[in-house]
Amino acid sequence: SRSINLAVIPGDGIGQEVVAEGLKVLSAVLPQDVKLETKEYDFGAKRYHATGETLTDADLAGLKQHDAILLGAIGDPSVPSGVLERGFLLKLRFAFDHHVNLRPSKLLPGVATPLAGQPEIDFVVVREGTEGPYTGNGGTIRKGTEHEVATEVSVNTAFGVERVVRDAFARAQARPRKKLTLVHKNNVLTFAGHLWTNVFNKVAAEYPEVETDYIHVDAATIYLVTQPERFDVIVTDNLFGDIITDLAAAVSGGIGVAASGNINPSGEFPSMFEPVHGSAPDIAGQGKADPTATVLSVSLLLRHLGYDTEAARIEDAVSADLAERGDKPARSTSEIGDALSVRVAG
Amino acid sequence: SRSINLAVIPGDGIGQEVVAEGLKVLSAVLPQDVKLETKEYDFGAKRYHATGETLTDADLAGLKQHDAILLGAIGDPSVPSGVLERGFLLKLRFAFDHHVNLRPSKLLPGVATPLAGQPEIDFVVVREGTEGPYTGNGGTIRKGTEHEVATEVSVNTAFGVERVVRDAFARAQARPRKKLTLVHKNNVLTFAGHLWTNVFNKVAAEYPEVETDYIHVDAATIYLVTQPERFDVIVTDNLFGDIITDLAAAVSGGIGVAASGNINPSGEFPSMFEPVHGSAPDIAGQGKADPTATVLSVSLLLRHLGYDTEAARIEDAVSADLAERGDKPARSTSEIGDALSVRVAG
Ligand SMILES: CC(C)[C@H](C(=O)O)[C@@H](O)C(=O)O
Ligand SMILES: CC(C)[C@H](C(=O)O)[C@@H](O)C(=O)O
Repeated sequence: SRSINLAVIPGDGIGQEVVAEGLKVLSAVLPQDVKLETKEYDFGAKRYHATGETLTDADLAGLKQHDAILLGAIGDPSVPSGVLERGFLLKLRFAFDHHVNLRPSKLLPGVATPLAGQPEIDFVVVREGTEGPYTGNGGTIRKGTEHEVATEVSVNTAFGVERVVRDAFARAQARPRKKLTLVHKNNVLTFAGHLWTNVFNKVAAEYPEVETDYIHVDAATIYLVTQPERFDVIVTDNLFGDIITDLAAAVSGGIGVAASGNINPSGEFPSMFEPVHGSAPDIAGQGKADPTATVLSVSLLLRHLGYDTEAARIEDAVSADLAERGDKPARSTSEIGDALSVRVAG
Repeated sequence: SRSINLAVIPGDGIGQEVVAEGLKVLSAVLPQDVKLETKEYDFGAKRYHATGETLTDADLAGLKQHDAILLGAIGDPSVPSGVLERGFLLKLRFAFDHHVNLRPSKLLPGVATPLAGQPEIDFVVVREGTEGPYTGNGGTIRKGTEHEVATEVSVNTAFGVERVVRDAFARAQARPRKKLTLVHKNNVLTFAGHLWTNVFNKVAAEYPEVETDYIHVDAATIYLVTQPERFDVIVTDNLFGDIITDLAAAVSGGIGVAASGNINPSGEFPSMFEPVHGSAPDIAGQGKADPTATVLSVSLLLRHLGYDTEAARIEDAVSADLAERGDKPARSTSEIGDALSVRVAG
C-alpha cells in the first residue's frame, strides 16, 4: 500500500493558517489506500528567539527522512533581516540541493490581474536554486567605516547550470508549445553570461523540437507586463528568477495564488513545496490569508511524488473556486480550505 | 554670453534618427543668446567593424572637452553581445564616473500603460552607475569544459554607496512628497545589503523631513505593477536599477518615452543623456522610431546644465503632444520632432 511521509513546517505568521488548509485539502484528495503521515517541525522566529537555532544538523537529519516537505512561511520583523533567510530557507535549499526552483504562472479565468485586457498567461519559471549570487560568497572589509568594501560573488558552474537547463528543456519538451526562453544579462555579466548561454545552446541541440529564445532580464520585465503570452518555459539564474517570479506572480493573480517547488530531481533529498508569499505578519492570526497558494503548492508536491490525478483534481478545484469568486463577500482562510476540500473530494 | 558645447553620439540603428530630432528640439528651445556648438562622434557598430575600436583614450580625451553628451543608441546584432556594452557604454560610464544614473518615470495624461485603471505614476529612480555587479570583476576557469566555473563579483564601497544615496536624499528633499525608498535584497545579499542599509540609515538622519522606506527588489517589481503610486524617489544598486527601470518604463508609457541621464554631479566629467531604449535595428531607417525619449533626455540635459526654464518647456511640449495623440494616425520620427520644435519655440 502507498504512503506519504510528509514533513510539515507551518513557520511564522500566516504560515500556520495556510498550511492547515493545505493539509486539509491534501487529506481530502488522497485516495483511501494512501496512508498520509505528517510530522510537524517548529522552525521559524519563535524557535530562533527561544534557542538561537534556525536549522541544525539534527533537524536536517530529521527532515531527510521524509518524502517531501510542505512549508508555510518563514520570517518575522522581530528577527534581523537575513537571519532566517540565510539560516533556514537558503540553508535548506543548499543542504538538500534544491536546484530546480519551480514557479508556475497561470492567469486563471475570473482572477484579477493588474494588467489591462486580461492577457493569456501560462508559463513556468525554472529558477536555479543553489548557485549564482545566493551562495553567500563574498564579504566585507573595514565594516562600518568610510572605507568599507562589501562584495557579493555570483558563482556559476557548468555542472550546476547544465542540470537546471536540462530540467527546463525536458519540461518545455513536455508542454504543448515547447518553447524555452533563457533569461540572463549576458551583455554585462559576461563571465556567467557566456557559461549560461553556451550550456543553453549546447543542450538545445539535443532538443530540436524545442523553440528557444534569449532575452535580457531587464527586457524580460517589460515583456512580462506587455506580452506575457510570449513565455512558455523560462530558465534563469537564482537572483533573476527571484525577481521575475515575483513579477510573474503579481501579473498572474497575485502572490495569493503563486505556488512553488524547491526540487531535488534525483530524489536524494526530499523536495520542499511552499507558497511564494511570505509570513504577512500584518494579517496573521485573523483568518484573512488566502490558502490557495499553499493548496497549489500541495498540488505541485503531489505531481512531484507521482500523484498526477490528484494534483490535477486540486488544480481543477482551485480554477473552479477562483472562477466563482467574482464579487462575492470575502471568505476566511478555513472557509476557502473547506470549499476546496469539498471540491477535490467530490 | 552663454554656450553649450555638446558631444553628439547618434550611434546605431534608430539612434541616428532620434538624435536628429533631439537636436532639432534643442535648437528650437534655446534662447538666441545661447551659442550651441555640436560635434558628432562615430561610435558604435560601424566603427567597431571598421577599426576594432569601441572607445579609445583619445576618444575619451575628446569627449571630456564637452559640456555634456547626447547619445542615441549603441548596439547591433552584428556585434557579439557584450562587446559594445562593456567596450563603449559601460566603459564611458566608468571612465567619466557617471555614478548617478537618473531615470524618471511619469505616466503622462493620454499615454497608454499596460496597467489597468491608469494609476498615478511619478517617481524617479536614482540608480548607482559605477559599482555593483557592473564592475567587470570576476572570471572564468576551465572555460568550455564540464568543470567551468564563472564568477561575477558585485563590488560595493561606502564611498560609492554614500555619494549616490546622498544624491537621492537631496532629490527627495527637493520634491513635494519627500519620500525615498531603498531597493535592495539585503536579506540574501547580506554583505552588500548591510552596507547599503547602514549608509542609507546614516544619511537619513540628516534628512529628517524625508520619509524613508525599504523594500526588497523582488517585492519592488510587484509594487511597480500593483501600487506604482507608492514611489517618489527610489535609490538602488546598479543591477537592480537596470531591472526595475525597464519595468518602470514599461508601466509608465513604454520605452518610447523613457529618458535617462548618466550624471557626474561634480562636473569633473561631462554627463551623458540618452533614451532608455536600444537601437531597435528592426525598425531602423524607416522613420518609425518615436524620438520622444530622446527629446526628454535633452530636457534632462538642459536641467543638468542649469537651463531649467527650457527643460520645463520641453516637458510641457511633450505632455501636450502626448495628450493629443489619441487615435490620430501615427506620425514619422521627424514629424514628431517638428511638432515638438514648434511647441517649444512657441
Ligand atoms: C525569502 C528569500 C530568501 C527568498 C529568495 O530570495 O529566494 C524569497 O524571496 C523567495 O523567492 O523564495
Ligand atoms: C545596454 C546595457 C549595458 C545597459 C545596462 O545594463 O545598463 C542598458 O540595459 C541600460 O539600462 O542602460
